[in-house]
Amino acid sequence: MKTRIGIVGYGNLSRGVESAIRQSDDLELVAVFTRRNPDSVKIRTQGVPVAGTDEIEKWKDRIDVLVIGGGSATDLPVQTPKYAEMFNVIDSFDTHAKIPEHFANVDAAAKRAGKVGIISIGWDPGMFSLMRMISTAVLPEGKNYTFWGKGVSQGHSDAVRRIEGVVDARQYTIPVDSAVDTVRRGETPDFTARQQHTRECFVVAEEGADKARIEKEIKEMPNYFDAYDTTVHFITAEEMKRDHSGLPHGGFVIRSGRTGFDKENKHIIEYNLKLDSNPEFTGSVIAAYARAAHRLNIEGQTGCKTIFDIPAAYLSPLSAEELRRTLL
Amino acid sequence: MKTRIGIVGYGNLSRGVESAIRQSDDLELVAVFTRRNPDSVKIRTQGVPVAGTDEIEKWKDRIDVLVIGGGSATDLPVQTPKYAEMFNVIDSFDTHAKIPEHFANVDAAAKRAGKVGIISIGWDPGMFSLMRMISTAVLPEGKNYTFWGKGVSQGHSDAVRRIEGVVDARQYTIPVDSAVDTVRRGETPDFTARQQHTRECFVVAEEGADKARIEKEIKEMPNYFDAYDTTVHFITAEEMKRDHSGLPHGGFVIRSGRTGFDKENKHIIEYNLKLDSNPEFTGSVIAAYARAAHRLNIEGQTGCKTIFDIPAAYLSPLSAEELRRTLL
Repeated sequence: MKTRIGIVGYGNLSRGVESAIRQSDDLELVAVFTRRNPDSVKIRTQGVPVAGTDEIEKWKDRIDVLVIGGGSATDLPVQTPKYAEMFNVIDSFDTHAKIPEHFANVDAAAKRAGKVGIISIGWDPGMFSLMRMISTAVLPEGKNYTFWGKGVSQGHSDAVRRIEGVVDARQYTIPVDSAVDTVRRGETPDFTARQQHTRECFVVAEEGADKARIEKEIKEMPNYFDAYDTTVHFITAEEMKRDHSGLPHGGFVIRSGRTGFDKENKHIIEYNLKLDSNPEFTGSVIAAYARAAHRLNIEGQTGCKTIFDIPAAYLSPLSAEELRRTLL
Repeated sequence: MKTRIGIVGYGNLSRGVESAIRQSDDLELVAVFTRRNPDSVKIRTQGVPVAGTDEIEKWKDRIDVLVIGGGSATDLPVQTPKYAEMFNVIDSFDTHAKIPEHFANVDAAAKRAGKVGIISIGWDPGMFSLMRMISTAVLPEGKNYTFWGKGVSQGHSDAVRRIEGVVDARQYTIPVDSAVDTVRRGETPDFTARQQHTRECFVVAEEGADKARIEKEIKEMPNYFDAYDTTVHFITAEEMKRDHSGLPHGGFVIRSGRTGFDKENKHIIEYNLKLDSNPEFTGSVIAAYARAAHRLNIEGQTGCKTIFDIPAAYLSPLSAEELRRTLL
């Protein structure tokens, strides 16, 4: 059985999903949908059509799972519930504080339509959430730490780009080594934001721009930078292209817990990701959970699901017997 | 709702489960069952009875999940199917090659009785299996590596103890640093057993025993030691007690995979455990999955399940809403 996948949007994440689909024989990309003029969008997979989102309803019987590739700020809160009225859907909604509301909207729409909607899939939220949850259940007395990086934060890079006189910018989030070492040793301190991560910016400035003013604006930017130690480097457009064109990321979730009648024994669980391409890894997680969405719906399940609700076996093209024989 | 738990046997693992139950308000230890004279077994939890395994059927309506704490060689293949005829059961069956057969036996018994049986729970098989499975589904093009240690292998320690002239022994399994570094860098070599792990033995010999002969017998022991570089240290009984009385263990599962249209991007997923007490951590995993066994059965599920079949949400005492709000 093949899972026929459609993708809404064609940004970095959607291209990551497109690339992941190629790696599994049981997944098939059948269409990409765009709000732009479809003729202006060239995708990489040969022979797959690009259509306007206004045509999407015509694809109802030809798509098993629709991946919603938009942004969490304005696209997904509207699109995921809307398309859950017609398709099994999956998204990477990452505004943690609004997950309960998004869940309720997708759940209602998917239940009305008899479809499955899976939200907040990727690595954080996503794999990191799953690790935090399982580790907390296994070691109830303990503490969770999440470190991000070293990697490019798109949101922070965009924030720097909006400063006057900035042509291009790339922001790296970097865990503080001494904080990481402390947690890996089994200590359980409370950290401030500054103690856990530093931020490093590479900036291409306009000719003649006031670099001191740009640096000051970055370092004092509320929420984004003011609570961190930030380093700013001014580089040329050529250096930006040569040294900072990738989108690497990663990070790790650590649970430090105790067991024993007198809590005498320490345990450290660490889940660690080193990713050359953030969107391609996120796209790979989404592709595996798209397979799960299709299977769950075939079994008659409906409504909104998160990574906490889905048995791991549903992610794999292997049968339950093969999984037990080869991977248990 | 409380989950009432019984434990069969009272070895290290059972004591780990006993200790884990104390850390969760919704889990309750109600009885320990032994094949020995119940009066000879003193457990640590106040007010909980020890009964003979011949009395176990009388507890049918007072126990929600029975943890089978025996060994994989001879106990579990008999006990888990047998008790699945009366109870929801859970075990830590770890003979990888015989999992399909054990699964079939437990599945048939549990289905006849309308119960749930969960097998092979712990960290390997268990959490490591789950990580291998999910990572393989997410990064289908790649390779899995499992490193164990540094930690005490009970099986290897027992094997050394059976050698003539050995009073006591402790065997540590240790990953080879250079092999670990190679994999963490994203290379994907094929290792021999010797290239991936070394073995270190601490031995208390009888007075006047031929130490050279003991060392030779250890190093040449088929399957256990002959394929590894092994170091042997002779120590006193006092040193053994002082320096080697714990049961630490751990290890890590790494998946090294590639994505991208031309497979140009590398990704490393690592799940890493550092455990002061192997049986207490294993017992903690079992306690969380015992909660899941009870819930699955309340929902009407029956038959044998593995770690691949159970949604993570079932492991936690928190509601689905709380999980989404706090851990997603």
